[in-house]
Amino acid sequence: MTARPANAHQARLLRLLRDGGPGSRAQLGDQVELSRSKLAVEIDRLLDTGLVVADGLAASRGGRRSHNVRLAPQLRFLGVDIGATSIDVAVTNAELEVLGHLNQPMDVREGPVAVFEQALGLAAKLRSSGLAPGGFDGAGVGVPGPVRFPEGVPVAPPIMPGWDGFPVREALSQDLGCPVLVDNDVNLMAMGERHAGVARSVDDFLCVKIGTGIGCGIVVGGQVHRGATGSAGDIGHIQVEPDGRPCACGNKGCLEAHFGGAALARDAEAAARSGRSPELASRLDTHGRLTAADVAAAAAAGDPASLALIREGGNRVGQVIAGLVSFFNPGLVVIGGGVTGLGHHLLASIRTQVYRQSLPLATGNLPIVLGELGPTAGVTGATLLITDHLFSPAS
Amino acid sequence: MTARPANAHQARLLRLLRDGGPGSRAQLGDQVELSRSKLAVEIDRLLDTGLVVADGLAASRGGRRSHNVRLAPQLRFLGVDIGATSIDVAVTNAELEVLGHLNQPMDVREGPVAVFEQALGLAAKLRSSGLAPGGFDGAGVGVPGPVRFPEGVPVAPPIMPGWDGFPVREALSQDLGCPVLVDNDVNLMAMGERHAGVARSVDDFLCVKIGTGIGCGIVVGGQVHRGATGSAGDIGHIQVEPDGRPCACGNKGCLEAHFGGAALARDAEAAARSGRSPELASRLDTHGRLTAADVAAAAAAGDPASLALIREGGNRVGQVIAGLVSFFNPGLVVIGGGVTGLGHHLLASIRTQVYRQSLPLATGNLPIVLGELGPTAGVTGATLLITDHLFSPAS
Repeated sequence: MTARPANAHQARLLRLLRDGGPGSRAQLGDQVELSRSKLAVEIDRLLDTGLVVADGLAASRGGRRSHNVRLAPQLRFLGVDIGATSIDVAVTNAELEVLGHLNQPMDVREGPVAVFEQALGLAAKLRSSGLAPGGFDGAGVGVPGPVRFPEGVPVAPPIMPGWDGFPVREALSQDLGCPVLVDNDVNLMAMGERHAGVARSVDDFLCVKIGTGIGCGIVVGGQVHRGATGSAGDIGHIQVEPDGRPCACGNKGCLEAHFGGAALARDAEAAARSGRSPELASRLDTHGRLTAADVAAAAAAGDPASLALIREGGNRVGQVIAGLVSFFNPGLVVIGGGVTGLGHHLLASIRTQVYRQSLPLATGNLPIVLGELGPTAGVTGATLLITDHLFSPAS
Repeated sequence: MTARPANAHQARLLRLLRDGGPGSRAQLGDQVELSRSKLAVEIDRLLDTGLVVADGLAASRGGRRSHNVRLAPQLRFLGVDIGATSIDVAVTNAELEVLGHLNQPMDVREGPVAVFEQALGLAAKLRSSGLAPGGFDGAGVGVPGPVRFPEGVPVAPPIMPGWDGFPVREALSQDLGCPVLVDNDVNLMAMGERHAGVARSVDDFLCVKIGTGIGCGIVVGGQVHRGATGSAGDIGHIQVEPDGRPCACGNKGCLEAHFGGAALARDAEAAARSGRSPELASRLDTHGRLTAADVAAAAAAGDPASLALIREGGNRVGQVIAGLVSFFNPGLVVIGGGVTGLGHHLLASIRTQVYRQSLPLATGNLPIVLGELGPTAGVTGATLLITDHLFSPAS
């Protein structure tokens, strides 16, 4: 895809077709403030670029039948969502429907070179399976740490040794032969849930991702708030216990040191070894290690120690979210990430804390819900990011 | 003032003249994207409305000398800033210069009728002193609690019995005979500091007001973030101590229960009575009660108990601000409100907490400073609010 919209009207039309799917000229006309003749001109120009194609006659609305148009069906976008311990790679069409999706365990601490080798391998696999025969028209990438957004460079990521300053955008763009944008993984999850999930069309909300670590996507007026240095939403290092556990960041008592996938696994193994949980002990025997999924399964089987771990973790994260709700007064809180496998036990503890600690005015009409898209939230947000860029007038 | 700008260009010109003062047509032309002839048309129309007047010839920039224009010098705006225990009323011209300013003790718990009687009395005094002979062209009002912004109605304010749902905007507008807008006092302080104080031209920052209670103004992209129900920034009820002191809101361990003007006065009186501070005891004997100002004076005199109270309070509020900095990644934090009389001792404790607890990426280039405008921050923000409204095209 080398063509770009020539002006703001064309950009708006492309995004409407991306978000709403194929539409008639008449339907598009209802959504943009353009005269009929100007609309026709812009659509004809988009047809000329090949970004948009005709798609048959629309259903009659009375009068002459209007032609349908849609985004070119061969456009392909790549979404890459790098977590701390796994990687998701997906290919979508221009309407951001996930056509194929692969997930693999991965260790972000191996550094960018090894991780991107893996990402490119997965992308090649999707491509060669016939999902993207012509290659990719653009790619969005999420990394589990703060990003200097305009340059697409991770900065000082606490859990990502070797990534500081690595030119992700530039390097991947060369390897893939297409434009690439990079953002924090949590921001992409938030925008993914806004595009196609539980936060659909919500303009102001928080999306808390509880994976190995914990972060928060902040959406204000439909846009991600990245903060002065790109580290907004870094709630994993909010102190929850004045003299609490030592954290990887060098401080004590950070939220992440007490809850999240890594802390939960550690606590679960301690419960298994101490004899407090025969259920977890038997799982530890079988697998050699424990994860949040083991705690979820043990809790589902009624294991009191696992239930207590979830409750305590939910209280911790709920305490932090309560503060954010008082501060930010969001209209919706979405909980996502790997630990959502803990499901409704976790959600119940979080809700209890927030509804107890924040003032009624802030919580009176505040849904706190699990994300809907699971592992495709991040990759959807990633393809949204790059198409937002490509469906803007080249400047 | 009955005229309103007829279009967005006129609105922009009015705001430029408000924020930049008198200017030549040529200077204005540099700041708006209008052809010379269109600019002349819009300025002539503004001259016709009487909102703008000619102001002599501008200094030469080579070529024909341009005419200066300015906002009509007789325009007057009223700013009312209602705190928990005092009220500020000021009159400004259209460039928001404070021409007169009165402050009185007041008790917000006496309810809206009594408080507005007092406010209107002060406004009448300013008016009759010759500062606003023609009355007011608009008024902005700040109240110390959440506000349903479009209607100008306080909602469920914890420290303001009798105010819930009181139609402030409507009632005052009738009494003053001019348009009125109402907002939370902390939001107005933030916008006042942005207009004329330490946050001048900063687009993303937090303004923490420590008065009787504690609140936070959140500015994103130059706009106040009010939240889903108008309660954004309500950080006084963030829990800082799991089983801490009982708070007026019904919870335990809220920030406000441990620090702020009210908590500090209580702690100071306890220190005076227990014999821990002879300095405070002698002030209590003299005044019958203690305030933050007494603690400030005692600390300046080297009283260890007062210094400890300030340090401890600064640690508490610093702990909360550290969390907000991790979450929001602001470019600037402004500390304002009555308790800023505690000055640099307080600031030092806050900074220590924030720089210790938040990650370096968020604090690396983060000034934490005292507000510059003191008691005129709120009234300046109030007149900014109403002129923003009046200098918009009537819809």
